[in-house]
Amino acid sequence: MMKILTFLFFVIAIFSCKPQSEKGSSSSVEKTDPLPTWNEGQVKQSIISFVEAVTVETSPDFIKSADRIAVFDNDGTLWAEQPYYFQLQFAIDRVKALAPEHPEWKENKLIQAVLADDINTVLSFGEKGLMELIMTTHAGMTTDEFSQIVKDWIITAKHPKTGKLYKEMVYQPMLEVLDYLRANGFKTWIVSGGGVDFLRPWTEEVYGIPADQVIGSSIKAAYEMRDGKPVLIKLPEINFIDDKEGKPVGIYQYIGKKPVAAFGNSDGDLQMLQYTASNHLKSLCVYIHHTDSVREWAYDRESHIGKLDKGLDEAIAKGWTVVDMKTDWKKIYF
Amino acid sequence: MMKILTFLFFVIAIFSCKPQSEKGSSSSVEKTDPLPTWNEGQVKQSIISFVEAVTVETSPDFIKSADRIAVFDNDGTLWAEQPYYFQLQFAIDRVKALAPEHPEWKENKLIQAVLADDINTVLSFGEKGLMELIMTTHAGMTTDEFSQIVKDWIITAKHPKTGKLYKEMVYQPMLEVLDYLRANGFKTWIVSGGGVDFLRPWTEEVYGIPADQVIGSSIKAAYEMRDGKPVLIKLPEINFIDDKEGKPVGIYQYIGKKPVAAFGNSDGDLQMLQYTASNHLKSLCVYIHHTDSVREWAYDRESHIGKLDKGLDEAIAKGWTVVDMKTDWKKIYF
Repeated sequence: MMKILTFLFFVIAIFSCKPQSEKGSSSSVEKTDPLPTWNEGQVKQSIISFVEAVTVETSPDFIKSADRIAVFDNDGTLWAEQPYYFQLQFAIDRVKALAPEHPEWKENKLIQAVLADDINTVLSFGEKGLMELIMTTHAGMTTDEFSQIVKDWIITAKHPKTGKLYKEMVYQPMLEVLDYLRANGFKTWIVSGGGVDFLRPWTEEVYGIPADQVIGSSIKAAYEMRDGKPVLIKLPEINFIDDKEGKPVGIYQYIGKKPVAAFGNSDGDLQMLQYTASNHLKSLCVYIHHTDSVREWAYDRESHIGKLDKGLDEAIAKGWTVVDMKTDWKKIYF
Repeated sequence: MMKILTFLFFVIAIFSCKPQSEKGSSSSVEKTDPLPTWNEGQVKQSIISFVEAVTVETSPDFIKSADRIAVFDNDGTLWAEQPYYFQLQFAIDRVKALAPEHPEWKENKLIQAVLADDINTVLSFGEKGLMELIMTTHAGMTTDEFSQIVKDWIITAKHPKTGKLYKEMVYQPMLEVLDYLRANGFKTWIVSGGGVDFLRPWTEEVYGIPADQVIGSSIKAAYEMRDGKPVLIKLPEINFIDDKEGKPVGIYQYIGKKPVAAFGNSDGDLQMLQYTASNHLKSLCVYIHHTDSVREWAYDRESHIGKLDKGLDEAIAKGWTVVDMKTDWKKIYF
């Protein structure tokens, strides 16, 4: 009888306690894991601790919602970037589609390499070559026309290695970070070296980030009337390069406020992380370190794409969060 | 007895009906006037009719909230701009504050005119002179330092004619439009020919428009380390002129979407209104016509500041809404 009573006592205790612990607001974070595809450990905890420290009103590090600005690099941080930037593949596809209309391209060695699928020669032209391909294929049309071309490409083009649509090669753990931050009153921004016009047509659907929260590199545009209707024409002239020192400048020009959280994966993001770390408010700086040669790619100091060298040293020296993709992420893609 | 019953019937009818008519969602607009300082008439009705047409889900003109983008010029549309742009007064005040440190300015005729309070000579230098004063006084310091100078100025500087703080010379009827649109799911943006860095420090408090929803003219900035801390230095080099054809370009570069509502007051806003009117969604284009020489200023086709000539013709031809400040607004300032 005593055993039955003791058993009943435990049953009652369990059932009466559980709802209470679920109700308490302080335990709401324990209730559901906000980052389920992140393995437990110091890295995951550093993100959660930061969010809790700045969102609890009684915390000494509390940050009001209007100042909860979180910025994310795109290539290599939110989606993959190997064997070369996906926007380069888009430009290559555009060159191939447009080549029949451009006999004059026969003299152009870079474009001939593109048409011959000689990607090593294409890459040997470096950043300048990439810019030339972007100018050639992104300019000379209206912004609406370009946007439609991107929309058509993003729902059909597939990655040569994984066979996935490029838009499926977004990192599931990072989608969780975006959701988690927004659920806690953060405004999430993309700050990409890639082209803003290449990103905006799909970032809302894929990342939940609307067009007006995307900062990127851009070419100039001009307003003109065509058949009595106003259009914006994309010009073959650089407007802004949103990389390295350009990232804090872009953040300043577009957001007008210093972020409190920044996520990147390469030396091109270092200045953005430094700028964020200099905030007088508590800040979180995170580097995604590509360490998983099986599920993704492993690269850092020697890579031509997404080189992470100085940034890694500074992250270690400053105690920033460095995500080890291989050990910290349960899975890469959805 | 019959009379008492009839009376009671009416009392019951009144008391039972009133709460019902207040509950009905269709009558919620009648209940409180969203634009109380606007006189009744065609102009006020055009704004209300537009908002109702695009926000009622069953309406053929319904626009989803993400596409409810409303853009506002600032000078002459949200606040006054006479006898000259308030930012010019700010630049003049800066020249006077900085002159003792700059003996080399003695050779500069424009600056000497500023120091002699010879405003006609200052204005005779035109747009180019205004830009020169802005470069001279807005560059060469960190963005944080500049922001603090603007914050100090905006809470102290007073208009020579009205004696009001400049930030009190915002149009009460337009503040109501901003609130009304936001209450109906619109995102409100400033698209100003004025300097974005001059606007951002105070637009949130004065207009309820946060820094990242302000588009304006800008000078370039550079990222550098000072004493181990990252700063952005304002450079004496134009980055972007957000006027005339520049306004649709700025909207495209920052928002990435075409607006459905645009408010302006000068020919400098015409392209922004044309661009908005070309939206395939229902749109609202509004010109504020300065017609009140007693309570404000009366000017249009011949004015050097806020010239409204081609824009007025096009507004009439296209049937856009033209606000007659004298007859449409019950009051100008709060």
